[in-house]
Amino acid sequence: MTSVRVACQQIAPVAGDLEGNRRLAREGVRDAVAAGAGLVVLPELCTSGYVLESAEEARSLAQPAHGGALAEWAEAAGDAVVVGGFAELGDDGRTYNSAAVVDRSGVLAVYRKAHLWDREKLLFAPGDAVSPVIDTRAGRIGVLVCYDVSFPEPVRSLAMRGADIVAVPTNNSHFPRPDDDQLAIEIALTRTQAYFNRVYVAFCDRAGSERGVDFLGGSAIAGPEGWSLTPERIGEPALLLADCDLDRARDKDWTERNHAFGDRRPELYEGVGARVH
Amino acid sequence: MTSVRVACQQIAPVAGDLEGNRRLAREGVRDAVAAGAGLVVLPELCTSGYVLESAEEARSLAQPAHGGALAEWAEAAGDAVVVGGFAELGDDGRTYNSAAVVDRSGVLAVYRKAHLWDREKLLFAPGDAVSPVIDTRAGRIGVLVCYDVSFPEPVRSLAMRGADIVAVPTNNSHFPRPDDDQLAIEIALTRTQAYFNRVYVAFCDRAGSERGVDFLGGSAIAGPEGWSLTPERIGEPALLLADCDLDRARDKDWTERNHAFGDRRPELYEGVGARVH
Repeated sequence: MTSVRVACQQIAPVAGDLEGNRRLAREGVRDAVAAGAGLVVLPELCTSGYVLESAEEARSLAQPAHGGALAEWAEAAGDAVVVGGFAELGDDGRTYNSAAVVDRSGVLAVYRKAHLWDREKLLFAPGDAVSPVIDTRAGRIGVLVCYDVSFPEPVRSLAMRGADIVAVPTNNSHFPRPDDDQLAIEIALTRTQAYFNRVYVAFCDRAGSERGVDFLGGSAIAGPEGWSLTPERIGEPALLLADCDLDRARDKDWTERNHAFGDRRPELYEGVGARVH
Repeated sequence: MTSVRVACQQIAPVAGDLEGNRRLAREGVRDAVAAGAGLVVLPELCTSGYVLESAEEARSLAQPAHGGALAEWAEAAGDAVVVGGFAELGDDGRTYNSAAVVDRSGVLAVYRKAHLWDREKLLFAPGDAVSPVIDTRAGRIGVLVCYDVSFPEPVRSLAMRGADIVAVPTNNSHFPRPDDDQLAIEIALTRTQAYFNRVYVAFCDRAGSERGVDFLGGSAIAGPEGWSLTPERIGEPALLLADCDLDRARDKDWTERNHAFGDRRPELYEGVGARVH
C-alpha cells in the first residue's frame, strides 16, 4: 500500500493583492506539509485572485511559469508535491489560467485551462495541450482547472492514461441554488468523476469574496468508489486532509466480473467524439 | 414551454412472481397516469425480479418484446409513455436485460442493456446496439439500464443525439456504504449526468428485497442544471413525480459565452475512445 495524505488548502485570495496572496499560499503549503500532506492542492488563480476586470488587469497580475510565487511553493514543499492555480504570462506573450505541479526541485509541469468559463474568455487564452499525467513522489498526478471538470472527458482521459489522483484547483462562485439542503453539484460531480474512473479527485475550491462575488468554499476529496473523504459543507477557509491509498486507484475491478475500463463499449457511444459549433 | 410530468414508479417486484409483478407494474402505471404523468418509468427487470439463480431461471421468466406484460403497460398508458425494464426472450433465442418504450399504440422501441453487472453476465446476453433516441409524445426519450450509467459515455451519446430525457430503469442493491449521511453515489451520479449534458435523467430504482438482497430504493429525477427534483431518500415503494420543461433540456447554454457541447475540446481528450481489455 502506497498511502499519500492529500490536502486541499481552501484559502481566500484577494483580487489584485499579489503579495498577500503569495503569503496565503506559502503559509498554506507550509501548514499542509506540517500536517503530513504529501500532495497539497491550492485553488485556481490563487496568485492573482479571480474577479478581474480586464485582460489588462489579468496580464498585469500574471507571472511566468518559473520563479515568483511558484518558487515559494517549491521552497515550502518539503517532501510534498504542490498543485496550484496561477495567472500565467506565457512565453508567447499570452495570459493563461494555468495550474503548476511543483516540488522542491522546481516546476514539474504546467497545464493551461482548456475550458474557459464565461468572462474568463475575455481575460485568458485557452490552453491547447492535452493535460499530462505527471509521475511524482506523491503518485501519478493529473491536473485540471474548475470548469474543465464540468465535462466527463478530461478526467476520463487522465484516468485512462494512468492518473491516480486528479488535482483540480477551482473557484466556485456561490450562485443561487434551488435548494440549500442539496449537496452542492460541484461536490456531487467530484464524487461522480472519481467513481466513473476509480481515481481520487482532489477538488480545491476557495473561500471569501471578491468585488461582490461570494465563493462557495466547496472543496472535496473523493475516493475511487465515489464517496467523499472530507466533510461536505465548508464555506470558510479550511485545510482538508484525506489519506489516499494509491493501490486502490490502480485497481479498476468493481467485481471479479467488472472492470471500470474493460466494461466500456466504445463502439456503442455514437456521437461522443463529435465537434459541436 | 413543453412541460411533461415525469414519474418514477419505485415498486418492489418479487423474483419469479410473474403474475404479481405484472399486477404491480400495471397498477403502478395506472396510478402514475392518474397523477398526471406523461412519462412513467418502471425499474429494471420488473417483470421477472432481479435476483435470479441461473440462466435457465432467467430464460423461463423472459418474454418476447411484444405482448405479455408490455401489452398491459400499453393498455394502462392512456396518453402517457411508459419505459420499463423486462427480461426479454429475443428472436435470436437469447435472454436479454432489456427496457421497452411503450405507448398506447404498442412497443415503440426496445433497448438491450449493453453493460452487464456482475452475475448478470451469467444470466443475460449483452446488447450490441446503440441506444436510440425515440421521438414520443413525451419528448425525445433515451433509455439506459442501471450499470450503463456508471459510464459517462452512454448518457453523453444520447444527449448529443438530441435526447431531452434519459430514462433509466435500475435495481440498486443496498451494498455497505461508508457513511450513511452521504448522498447515495447513485443519486450523485444521476445529478451529475444530468448536469454534464443539460438533460433530465429519470432514474427509477426498486424497493424491497429478494432472496437475501436488499434494494436501495434510490430513485431520483434530476434536472438540466444537476439538481434533484425529487426527495433524496426514499427506500420504500413510492411514486416520484417531477414536472420537466423540455425547452430547458434543449437549451445547452450555460451563459452567453458557454455552451455545454460547444465548449467541448474533443482534440484534447486523448485516450477516451480506447478499448481496454
